[in-house]
Amino acid sequence: MRVEVVAIGTELLLGQIVDTNSAAISAKLAEFGIDCYFQTRVGDNLERIKLVLREALARNDAVITCGGLGPTQDDITRQAIAEVMGVELIKDEAIAAKIKTMFTSRGRQMSANNLEQSMVPKGATAIDQIRGTAPGLICPFGNKVLYALPGVPHELVEMLDRAVLPDLLLRNGSVTKIVSRVIRTWGLAESALAEALDSVIAEIDMSQDPITLAFLASGIEGIKVRLTAKGGDPNAVAGVIAKYETAVLEIVGSHVFGFDEMTMEAAIADELLARNLKLAVAESVTGGLVSSRLVAVAGASKWFVGGVVSYASDVKFKLLGVEQGDVISESAVLSMAKGVRKVLGADVGLAFSGVAGPDRTEGQEVGTVWIGIDGGTSGCHAQVLQLPGDRERIRQFATISGLDVLRRWLRRVHPT
Amino acid sequence: MRVEVVAIGTELLLGQIVDTNSAAISAKLAEFGIDCYFQTRVGDNLERIKLVLREALARNDAVITCGGLGPTQDDITRQAIAEVMGVELIKDEAIAAKIKTMFTSRGRQMSANNLEQSMVPKGATAIDQIRGTAPGLICPFGNKVLYALPGVPHELVEMLDRAVLPDLLLRNGSVTKIVSRVIRTWGLAESALAEALDSVIAEIDMSQDPITLAFLASGIEGIKVRLTAKGGDPNAVAGVIAKYETAVLEIVGSHVFGFDEMTMEAAIADELLARNLKLAVAESVTGGLVSSRLVAVAGASKWFVGGVVSYASDVKFKLLGVEQGDVISESAVLSMAKGVRKVLGADVGLAFSGVAGPDRTEGQEVGTVWIGIDGGTSGCHAQVLQLPGDRERIRQFATISGLDVLRRWLRRVHPT
Repeated sequence: MRVEVVAIGTELLLGQIVDTNSAAISAKLAEFGIDCYFQTRVGDNLERIKLVLREALARNDAVITCGGLGPTQDDITRQAIAEVMGVELIKDEAIAAKIKTMFTSRGRQMSANNLEQSMVPKGATAIDQIRGTAPGLICPFGNKVLYALPGVPHELVEMLDRAVLPDLLLRNGSVTKIVSRVIRTWGLAESALAEALDSVIAEIDMSQDPITLAFLASGIEGIKVRLTAKGGDPNAVAGVIAKYETAVLEIVGSHVFGFDEMTMEAAIADELLARNLKLAVAESVTGGLVSSRLVAVAGASKWFVGGVVSYASDVKFKLLGVEQGDVISESAVLSMAKGVRKVLGADVGLAFSGVAGPDRTEGQEVGTVWIGIDGGTSGCHAQVLQLPGDRERIRQFATISGLDVLRRWLRRVHPT
Repeated sequence: MRVEVVAIGTELLLGQIVDTNSAAISAKLAEFGIDCYFQTRVGDNLERIKLVLREALARNDAVITCGGLGPTQDDITRQAIAEVMGVELIKDEAIAAKIKTMFTSRGRQMSANNLEQSMVPKGATAIDQIRGTAPGLICPFGNKVLYALPGVPHELVEMLDRAVLPDLLLRNGSVTKIVSRVIRTWGLAESALAEALDSVIAEIDMSQDPITLAFLASGIEGIKVRLTAKGGDPNAVAGVIAKYETAVLEIVGSHVFGFDEMTMEAAIADELLARNLKLAVAESVTGGLVSSRLVAVAGASKWFVGGVVSYASDVKFKLLGVEQGDVISESAVLSMAKGVRKVLGADVGLAFSGVAGPDRTEGQEVGTVWIGIDGGTSGCHAQVLQLPGDRERIRQFATISGLDVLRRWLRRVHPT
């Protein structure tokens, strides 16, 4: 089965936004073994959208469009699809009612334009919207099919997973199962990780097991080792994944903080919950990023008390009890950790102080970041990191690195 | 003059990398008034590359390809172009010598593969490489032309500026300039904004001025109104942009927080600096997001003191002086704002308290967020928002909405 992705929007052709949607859709298709040989982008121009859709339908079994389903005058994907189908647009009363309700429930005024989104090409089926207002479309073309998705990335991804992929897989009729297992690491560079796992890769090559091992450097989400196996028998697929997962963990287990979708902050949540400890965070260089990542975990109130963003040095001195003087230092970061633990009434304090740039501070290189931990009677720990990148990257790397320092300290000092 | 961008590489179709090259090329074309109506991506497959190149040449005056010029077996762009031209590949001795010298001078071993990069379709001209090894190509097709550029972004951009754009502009023979102006808004839904600007859109349609108006919903970056004008006379282009910018601002000016690349946090920085005020933030539902966005602005220490992430209610009560009781309320959020202003020694305190979900809290709906401002002698202000989306979206929307509430309050209460 062959699918083409068509991204619609003049802003793409003006280079004002980068098209991440096509990559997101294509990655999903690849995961399920569906071929994608072409991606096309076209602007908000009726004739050219129609041309591109006709070409895409001619050379593929299915087409997925994204963008152009909004309520404004330049959103003409619905119109173009209807013309290529050779049908009228008709109002779907159920969708119209839903859009009206959505506006009412949020206490917002609905404009007449919004009802444009309830227009559906005759013969097509609407896909319910959950995260926004623009419904998607499933449009039959003989034995082929076209799916129209909204261009807002989080709306698109949700609709792709819920409605488009299941429909495509049903049409594809294949029973091959592809299973991926992602092992998430922090603390080794990609090349060092690859070198450490050389023997596992060699074993896979020699065994001819239906499995591949790949490395995905995912920035602040860590470096992922992805095992992907396929086959007709689910048990056999699970077995081959388990075999190589064990082999990977034997070698690099100490650097693994989670699996699949598990984030570093979720790993921290588990470690703290298992020990019945509550955390408070003092942030200078990271400016609230650490707290905001921790709060993103549902149920964070069970193990996270709160934080102090001590951006001005005075806040460090007066509120956290840091001694006057340089604040990018071992003693200052330990005082911050102790101070925030006490002021907020937590069991463990974690603190960050460093230089995100663009200029050096207190004579320290850009990228220097001190991490401090204070656990009261369980003692304290500090270490310094030298991080690469610009201001934003340094703050992001400091966040995950500091959480990993905490994770390792908890395991060492507070065994479960 | 019309140009199509063709990005070549199977990794694009697998979604393993996002195609930023096409956006970079298109942005340059737009800047120089050259139309780009289509972008296409195709994998490393000879027949499909040829198909795409033939289609692109048929519907455009020029084609720019990127990718597939490397030294390995899957780099077949040169081969595909030669076959579409109907000519042989011949070795360019000057390029071959240059590649050899480059390897020698860097003390690296050259493999035979690298000389593949010295092969040029008969009749084409090579573009010198400065940053890497793969030369580009200028390939004539009658009165049309195809440019082939390497896929490594910094190599591509350098070659585009130095060799491709000058050649294109020479062929184009025109000096049309395209200028965009982005007006950034917060507080109106896209449809309401479109409705409000109906008269401006009608005026553009009737006037036949060479300008377009488009809406870009950019999530937590707000909703953008983009004016794009083109013409041969830079003053006339600037004039037509200014005319409609004024018209837009007259209608929706109170919702505009910035222009072009300006973010909401940068707008807040300007408002605070202009009034010589220092800000402190108390965050519950946003959990540090507000502070981290503010700190992302370089030079934030001039106007940002710090923040308290009062996630546990106890932190609100003990550190910020909130009265025991419900914390998602007008009185609690005002106490938080006052408390953080005093504890951190700022002029203005901004506070956030609400329900990000997944469950209701204190009987309040998911998405309910109170924003509080305390300016000491300048008084205080609170308002409640009802925000859509999941946990993460609610926190993000609360952040930009709360900053916008502060922006409007500063303008109202502290005129410059």
